[in-house]
Amino acid sequence: MSTEDLAAAVDGLPLVDHHVHGALAGEVDRPALELMLTESDRPVPAWMTQFDSQLGFAIRRWCAPVLGLPAHADAADYVARREELGAEEVTRRLLAASGIGHYLVETGYKGDEILSPGGMASASGVPADEVVRLETVLEDLARSGVGAAELPSRFPEVLAERTADAVGLKSIVAYRYGFDFDPQRPSEAEVVAAAGNWLRSGSPRVDDPVLLRFLLWSGADRGLPLQLHAGYGDPDVELHRCDPLLLTRFIKLVEPSGVDLMLLHCYPFHRNAGYLAQVFPHVYFDVGLGVNYSGVRSAAVVAESLELAPFAKILFSSDAWGPPELHHLGALLWRRGMLKALSEWVEAGEWSEPDAIRVVRMIGQDNARRVYRLDQR
Amino acid sequence: MSTEDLAAAVDGLPLVDHHVHGALAGEVDRPALELMLTESDRPVPAWMTQFDSQLGFAIRRWCAPVLGLPAHADAADYVARREELGAEEVTRRLLAASGIGHYLVETGYKGDEILSPGGMASASGVPADEVVRLETVLEDLARSGVGAAELPSRFPEVLAERTADAVGLKSIVAYRYGFDFDPQRPSEAEVVAAAGNWLRSGSPRVDDPVLLRFLLWSGADRGLPLQLHAGYGDPDVELHRCDPLLLTRFIKLVEPSGVDLMLLHCYPFHRNAGYLAQVFPHVYFDVGLGVNYSGVRSAAVVAESLELAPFAKILFSSDAWGPPELHHLGALLWRRGMLKALSEWVEAGEWSEPDAIRVVRMIGQDNARRVYRLDQR
Amino acid sequence: MSTEDLAAAVDGLPLVDHHVHGALAGEVDRPALELMLTESDRPVPAWMTQFDSQLGFAIRRWCAPVLGLPAHADAADYVARREELGAEEVTRRLLAASGIGHYLVETGYKGDEILSPGGMASASGVPADEVVRLETVLEDLARSGVGAAELPSRFPEVLAERTADAVGLKSIVAYRYGFDFDPQRPSEAEVVAAAGNWLRSGSPRVDDPVLLRFLLWSGADRGLPLQLHAGYGDPDVELHRCDPLLLTRFIKLVEPSGVDLMLLHCYPFHRNAGYLAQVFPHVYFDVGLGVNYSGVRSAAVVAESLELAPFAKILFSSDAWGPPELHHLGALLWRRGMLKALSEWVEAGEWSEPDAIRVVRMIGQDNARRVYRLDQR
Repeated sequence: MSTEDLAAAVDGLPLVDHHVHGALAGEVDRPALELMLTESDRPVPAWMTQFDSQLGFAIRRWCAPVLGLPAHADAADYVARREELGAEEVTRRLLAASGIGHYLVETGYKGDEILSPGGMASASGVPADEVVRLETVLEDLARSGVGAAELPSRFPEVLAERTADAVGLKSIVAYRYGFDFDPQRPSEAEVVAAAGNWLRSGSPRVDDPVLLRFLLWSGADRGLPLQLHAGYGDPDVELHRCDPLLLTRFIKLVEPSGVDLMLLHCYPFHRNAGYLAQVFPHVYFDVGLGVNYSGVRSAAVVAESLELAPFAKILFSSDAWGPPELHHLGALLWRRGMLKALSEWVEAGEWSEPDAIRVVRMIGQDNARRVYRLDQR
Repeated sequence: MSTEDLAAAVDGLPLVDHHVHGALAGEVDRPALELMLTESDRPVPAWMTQFDSQLGFAIRRWCAPVLGLPAHADAADYVARREELGAEEVTRRLLAASGIGHYLVETGYKGDEILSPGGMASASGVPADEVVRLETVLEDLARSGVGAAELPSRFPEVLAERTADAVGLKSIVAYRYGFDFDPQRPSEAEVVAAAGNWLRSGSPRVDDPVLLRFLLWSGADRGLPLQLHAGYGDPDVELHRCDPLLLTRFIKLVEPSGVDLMLLHCYPFHRNAGYLAQVFPHVYFDVGLGVNYSGVRSAAVVAESLELAPFAKILFSSDAWGPPELHHLGALLWRRGMLKALSEWVEAGEWSEPDAIRVVRMIGQDNARRVYRLDQR
Repeated sequence: MSTEDLAAAVDGLPLVDHHVHGALAGEVDRPALELMLTESDRPVPAWMTQFDSQLGFAIRRWCAPVLGLPAHADAADYVARREELGAEEVTRRLLAASGIGHYLVETGYKGDEILSPGGMASASGVPADEVVRLETVLEDLARSGVGAAELPSRFPEVLAERTADAVGLKSIVAYRYGFDFDPQRPSEAEVVAAAGNWLRSGSPRVDDPVLLRFLLWSGADRGLPLQLHAGYGDPDVELHRCDPLLLTRFIKLVEPSGVDLMLLHCYPFHRNAGYLAQVFPHVYFDVGLGVNYSGVRSAAVVAESLELAPFAKILFSSDAWGPPELHHLGALLWRRGMLKALSEWVEAGEWSEPDAIRVVRMIGQDNARRVYRLDQR
């Protein structure tokens, strides 16, 4: 059974990257670059390099040729070539070669170091819409001098303004607290009390669980698809508290609101996410981030994501932030993983090739276009 | 290294399906059928079909030919053909082609919609024995007007009568509460108090953890193998509370009673179940349910089930309920998964072919015959 | 793409087994041997044999030829041949054929039944250094008649003496309590109180969480790499409490001390360990023990260990205790698993062969030599 048509469909699909951040806005040297090739926020020890990792090997294998170097170019040559071409050209090449057709850019993290949605559209030549991080909107509101008593009514107004053109919302409750929060909508009195404590503390960072829950429920009220970081991330997370299964009661409570919940990344809990996506119509998931960081092993992660969830409930994302290598590899490794899994199944006669092509399009493009209403923009 | 003998042994093995429910007793239309092809109890959204899932693809691939259609027949044609043949003929064909040789039928869930053990025996032409659900026996007893004070003594009597011909018991404490219960046997006073509250509430459904523990310990007293739903299931479960590892203390406490504990399904915690089956002589497990719902990916799930547990401690089940496609695929996908794994190992020279054949027979048939004492019936 | 050089490098690498115990010091009969081929401490039931397991099949496949029998020799012949050769010769052959070049021997468990580090060096002809179990040092100190009040100051002195020549420390807090302990360093008053209770109890076994934490922090003060049993083990563990993610807060608290934390085994939580090893510079892990017990499936476990962690953070161990089959297979299965994964990646053009060879050397030897400062001995 030939799988040429499947290969062509996978290769040519203009992916919707439904959760991504901007590419780097400026130049970085090797130490700075290495720090962006790990979820660690610690300095890279002298006795190692982040290039000696699955991600590092994937960069040398797949990004080097895009920059005009041989595959497996060594790290020093790669960094030198990167600097020679300059950030703008590196970004242009890597984004173009990724074949991503539409970026949904989450703008809430270190936005001054990376391209804005407009900048991503310019650099890539394809549309880029915005996903707004709830915690950032609240932290901006706090800096504006809001009082605790007015915060419960002011936040939804500010959120509506801030998201007038957005396609989705994002919560990082996983980072700021964990998923083991009280799933009920907090009362206004609770929110006012928590806001008072927080505003008095002077901390720019919201991590009070009452306020984080208030953000989630305000997000549900807003009605846009609500992305939740789940699973693997930087050392801020306590990973065992980021298993999406811990959201089960919240998922049930929020179901009547009609909001769609987009579980992001999920590694190493992606099978758990697949269960939630099967049983709850408003739950979706992807395996972004984990795909990049597992490099050649991402084929296994992608295959594991194709178990319990109906194919209408799985999406593609890169979760890239910063180095455009991450945008490029997010797409490339996902394509390779999907092709590897599906072509094996077609060759074994288990799936038909037209079905396989249809599933690739659903996961890589159609589901995101439907959920985020991209055709109505 | 040829694996023809292994393939023949796998193909011809009359499986003991040690945990299964009846096939549908009547006709269903497509919407009703789709609701039975997911563990979700929510309506199928208009923008998707359950046929676009691993299970749906497996049905179109493997069941369509049994009904006289080409492999990968589309869903509409498949449903039309199903209706044309009628439920009885569809069931007859799919059960016969499954090669299952003995059904252990759990009768506690929606028994009026599906075939009884006798009906399964008639439809398949092979023996069908009964596994009795503990919660159902208690709920029936409650409906009969039992008083709280007499419940602790009446239940064992009723259970003995109800299971006079049964081969096993089943607990759904995972659905009704979770595995994070106090593992100790509750005192009679605790049971009477909990029973009083429950009977006064008028709820037909037992979900009080004291009563659920009472059922488990009563089941252990009864002495038949005790099946426990574990892992993945419908949205009633809070899946993180259904990890079989949470049973560790109960497993140790109940060990002196001599009861065998059969951990069912276990996905995505099947590796955890394998650990329990290695270290505790009275613990067994299977990967039913997850095999059906992961379709072509079930080969990976089956392979993962073959790690820590001694081969005498692993069983086969389909956990099918309703559509006989589930009975058929439970057997077919397990056979394919076992053959794929074991033939690779034989071809690589890691296992001998006679060993592989022996292991298939242990897991598919012999272990269940021994544990459930099927040869003494 | 040829992978001959890779195969030769894998085959010829003198591994550092960074966590292992001594081989059996004397003869054992079949029942005793079988009890050492499982993590269960229960008698092997009459209706089964531990040889019918992945480990048993791997012994018959790979160890039988080392003893002069055909591959897949049956269990009875294998045991007979073992007895015929005698323990010393069996050990000599299996250790030599393992190609292990350096043993880091943990001596705290049933040391009278197995070879000491010196005995291992003699039997193998390669160096063997010692890893000291913290709990054993404290239990020895208790037997010596220490008072509770002096214990906090005496223990570090005794530990320093006991570890003057050691290369590392080991904690079994996972067995004795679980990882869900208060991560803070306990105060001296707390330690004295807990020590008083323990010493008065007369129990030879330390399982008080305050004392176990005291050991961990004393170990951090000592400054040697600190090994922690994680994941799968005998029925003493409550496995869900041994997920290394539960150590996250302790890992952060101990980070400023500069101590390296070596997470051992980790199955089935090895992906979680990979996350910790990525984000925390002082965290390392291996997949020993699980490799032996999963036999032919160890290739999957090894591959799963090569995801998030930088290659400088992964190590090799066998965790063998007793039968030298476990030392032999720990090395052999790891080599086979690494070669299978890496040669596939090289053949597919995803990794270069020199990179693959470099990674094998890092994980199998170089990382351990660096962390345990073996070149400074």
